[in-house]
Amino acid sequence: MELVVYLAGQIHDDWRQQLRQKAEERGLPLIFKGPQEDHDRSDSIGERIKGEQPNKEYRDHTASEVNNLRTRIWMEKADVVLALFGDQYRQWNTALDAGAAIQAGKPLILVRPAELIHPLKELAQRAQVVVESPEQALDALAYVLE
Amino acid sequence: MELVVYLAGQIHDDWRQQLRQKAEERGLPLIFKGPQEDHDRSDSIGERIKGEQPNKEYRDHTASEVNNLRTRIWMEKADVVLALFGDQYRQWNTALDAGAAIQAGKPLILVRPAELIHPLKELAQRAQVVVESPEQALDALAYVLE
Amino acid sequence: MELVVYLAGQIHDDWRQQLRQKAEERGLPLIFKGPQEDHDRSDSIGERIKGEQPNKEYRDHTASEVNNLRTRIWMEKADVVLALFGDQYRQWNTALDAGAAIQAGKPLILVRPAELIHPLKELAQRAQVVVESPEQALDALAYVLE
Amino acid sequence: MELVVYLAGQIHDDWRQQLRQKAEERGLPLIFKGPQEDHDRSDSIGERIKGEQPNKEYRDHTASEVNNLRTRIWMEKADVVLALFGDQYRQWNTALDAGAAIQAGKPLILVRPAELIHPLKELAQRAQVVVESPEQALDALAYVLE
Amino acid sequence: MELVVYLAGQIHDDWRQQLRQKAEERGLPLIFKGPQEDHDRSDSIGERIKGEQPNKEYRDHTASEVNNLRTRIWMEKADVVLALFGDQYRQWNTALDAGAAIQAGKPLILVRPAELIHPLKELAQRAQVVVESPEQALDALAYVLE
Amino acid sequence: MELVVYLAGQIHDDWRQQLRQKAEERGLPLIFKGPQEDHDRSDSIGERIKGEQPNKEYRDHTASEVNNLRTRIWMEKADVVLALFGDQYRQWNTALDAGAAIQAGKPLILVRPAELIHPLKELAQRAQVVVESPEQALDALAYVLE
Amino acid sequence: MELVVYLAGQIHDDWRQQLRQKAEERGLPLIFKGPQEDHDRSDSIGERIKGEQPNKEYRDHTASEVNNLRTRIWMEKADVVLALFGDQYRQWNTALDAGAAIQAGKPLILVRPAELIHPLKELAQRAQVVVESPEQALDALAYVLE
Amino acid sequence: MELVVYLAGQIHDDWRQQLRQKAEERGLPLIFKGPQEDHDRSDSIGERIKGEQPNKEYRDHTASEVNNLRTRIWMEKADVVLALFGDQYRQWNTALDAGAAIQAGKPLILVRPAELIHPLKELAQRAQVVVESPEQALDALAYVLE
Repeated sequence: MELVVYLAGQIHDDWRQQLRQKAEERGLPLIFKGPQEDHDRSDSIGERIKGEQPNKEYRDHTASEVNNLRTRIWMEKADVVLALFGDQYRQWNTALDAGAAIQAGKPLILVRPAELIHPLKELAQRAQVVVESPEQALDALAYVLE
Repeated sequence: MELVVYLAGQIHDDWRQQLRQKAEERGLPLIFKGPQEDHDRSDSIGERIKGEQPNKEYRDHTASEVNNLRTRIWMEKADVVLALFGDQYRQWNTALDAGAAIQAGKPLILVRPAELIHPLKELAQRAQVVVESPEQALDALAYVLE
Repeated sequence: MELVVYLAGQIHDDWRQQLRQKAEERGLPLIFKGPQEDHDRSDSIGERIKGEQPNKEYRDHTASEVNNLRTRIWMEKADVVLALFGDQYRQWNTALDAGAAIQAGKPLILVRPAELIHPLKELAQRAQVVVESPEQALDALAYVLE
Repeated sequence: MELVVYLAGQIHDDWRQQLRQKAEERGLPLIFKGPQEDHDRSDSIGERIKGEQPNKEYRDHTASEVNNLRTRIWMEKADVVLALFGDQYRQWNTALDAGAAIQAGKPLILVRPAELIHPLKELAQRAQVVVESPEQALDALAYVLE
Repeated sequence: MELVVYLAGQIHDDWRQQLRQKAEERGLPLIFKGPQEDHDRSDSIGERIKGEQPNKEYRDHTASEVNNLRTRIWMEKADVVLALFGDQYRQWNTALDAGAAIQAGKPLILVRPAELIHPLKELAQRAQVVVESPEQALDALAYVLE
Repeated sequence: MELVVYLAGQIHDDWRQQLRQKAEERGLPLIFKGPQEDHDRSDSIGERIKGEQPNKEYRDHTASEVNNLRTRIWMEKADVVLALFGDQYRQWNTALDAGAAIQAGKPLILVRPAELIHPLKELAQRAQVVVESPEQALDALAYVLE
Repeated sequence: MELVVYLAGQIHDDWRQQLRQKAEERGLPLIFKGPQEDHDRSDSIGERIKGEQPNKEYRDHTASEVNNLRTRIWMEKADVVLALFGDQYRQWNTALDAGAAIQAGKPLILVRPAELIHPLKELAQRAQVVVESPEQALDALAYVLE
Repeated sequence: MELVVYLAGQIHDDWRQQLRQKAEERGLPLIFKGPQEDHDRSDSIGERIKGEQPNKEYRDHTASEVNNLRTRIWMEKADVVLALFGDQYRQWNTALDAGAAIQAGKPLILVRPAELIHPLKELAQRAQVVVESPEQALDALAYVLE
């Protein structure tokens, strides 16, 4: 039985691609979904579809319409949500997705470095599993599939 | 008919107290609930109740148990959630609460300065109302009560 | 035991005021809630709170933020929803509110003149009660309270 | 992974057929469902199945029983709902379906011409994506599937 | 703390009135709600509100609109549902209400004479409490309130 | 796309078998589920699995445990529920299943002869489609699948 | 604003009475509900209401009908559930209530001595707060009410 | 149509393996899921993934994070939950899983020896089916699939 995993987190490097590859190497029946991983495309998708907007705020607003469409559809289909935090970027989307996953009763795997223990303590306490690397998250998912 | 408003956001200044006072001056039938506003008490509540923990991570973990108890109980009772973001602090709890509110179908009022439009764009797009100051949020709530 | 009734429908005349008065004359323990009934105020509330917007579309968007806040809060508290249709205006908000009420499992009372039977047939078939005047709706509510 | 899209809107021209064809040309794994597209068949289906009714109102009522059966079954299976509005027809069913989709937590894509911005402003504010043509809606769905 | 009890069952004798009186004598903080207890009024309420209908079926249909409005509103508010069956009448409404209560997660107290054990066995197995008289149901409710 | 249909109703003749055959002849992608159709087996299944019980009431109770297991599992998987009523038998299980389906938001097709219009009026008013024969119900399902 | 607390756990000593008294001494606006605290009455309530049963199993079954009625009604009304475990008794009811509370999204406070850490580890991990004494649980509730 | 069965219960012997084999011999389309069946692996999985913990309590806590992840994912996918109790071990996890299944509306099959009737009476009364051996549970599932 395959599991669908939503990968919440920043879209500035290829951590999702690495995770997909490791899961494939281990032969795990996991389907990964997540936000758009091309950052420029993510920021410009609203204007690409709807045309130029009157100002930056509305440019952002339209991009978010389409990005949130994507997130909502795949989050709804996910069996489990993995949220990755790092020491860069605001990552409010990641926390937003984590809050939605918890409220929807979907188990959340929180991945965060030890330095972020304090600011993420409430989020960690409501997560199902808290680890420090995506590989550990994969270990937990592999255990579910044993 | 009274409305219960959960006030998500940082606990480093007295913005909630100011909001309560303004609501009272305007005679609005609003009951405000929110996290513990004394920051030290919030951080130490786990050890105060459960005794000393083996390390900082578990100190944080126990504090979060009690803080999340508080948040979950009042969020559940809230008719509407107000989430305030500013330019300081990580504010991941605020985004977490916002995500939970949205998923629970509770209307969210997002309060954030113009500088934060871009990093909060997805959260803003899913909020019910987006304003720049707590006073504007109060205006919106007053309109609901007219 | 009091019942909360949400009054969906156009805001161009005083039908809600008349209904409230008739309910009061009959001594019915009904609390009526609904959208803003001052049409200009409804259209301008976004700019009043958030300031001038870059164009008409965004003026409308901001007004809708606040109007929808109001609708969502009172619809959530309603025990029953009354939706009034007439031969004027688009009334898409009314149909939107009716759809939301049905999906939320709240009983819907549809009030519409006989001329609108055909275009409202699907909505009528999913309503709990279909009548032709607000007085008849009040009769049905009075029967519930007997 | 295929997505099911419910196509709410008028049934007087072949817009759904065009959309299906464009999706197929782009190789998008989308399954489109929606109301009966043959208008006469839609209006007469009640009497075809149940026999002649005592008057027009009940003819409409029986047709709606069967049309609503169809709508409810496919809406329930839909991952996302697209609601098309134009400048003709009452389109209360479309607004009804949109309200039900929003309340059910299904993302709504609203397609409407610029002339209808004002009367659809509340509906637009609660939609996940607002565009002006079915092609733009398809662009948004394609982005979800990237 | 008061409890709201919905009294499903036939409306041909005064069993509800007797139950209310016994509860009052015992000083139990119970609020009883239920269907219209005047049988003629129940059957004619549709035509009284909406006027004469084209045939008996539609007379019944309109009466049911209003009776179901009543049932749905009070069932929604009930903490517990009591369903009384006897050896007379079809009592399909009673079984319908029982099914709805079970599905809604509301505890059901089934009251039925020993002769009806066999035909009510599936319903009994899903009820929370099964007794043979309304007095026994009251005993169970009194125990909850101890 | 296949639809799962739960067939509630008496188990004293082969109406389900006939319906299955007609659906097959028309090539409709319908999967029919329902209660045990062998009446003796249905009544004795509790004792067959659990051994002899102390009296008839508990014999019935154990049979109902297993029959309700079956009903709950397939009702949960059903996209639509068909409830057949006739002029024989108590049929309280049928009404119970209908009530559960309505409350669960599953569309209900009620099949009943004209003689039963009056005693089934409340149930009919909450059903999605009301017809007089299983063939008409099949017509309605075929229409959904067009 | 008062909070309703359900007190799950054994009924062999007066721990609930002590907790109620301490809450009162501290002036906390808490309403405590829970199972029947008189053990004999709890075991015999089925036969007291329904008369003698054919064997011990069915004596237990009938008692459980009434005890579960009580538990379900008060659990549904609870804002928070406190589950106390000790080193005596099976306490499967306590774990059952805890599982139901967690699944219902109600915050759970687990009270258990240090010796039971290992056998209660999965339950503890899903609780909102884990403490070793009822007094600590009261401290946590007092913090929520600050 | 295949059914997914979650097997809650102790992990100290091979009862699940035996059940799987019997189901296979009977050709039943059942997919069994459950907790990790290797007891040592279950207890150490937290430290295996996350490294050594400061004390036994936190060793247990981390193991539970991963074990609960597994339970939550498969319970969510289960159509029915089987809970096995025996005369050894605390089995609080089993009762916890049973409580969660009941609250989630998933039918529960309770398997327990006659000696445990009394301490499991409340749990039994809320189960859908109560039997004394896994083979009887399989009989009940086979009956559902007839």
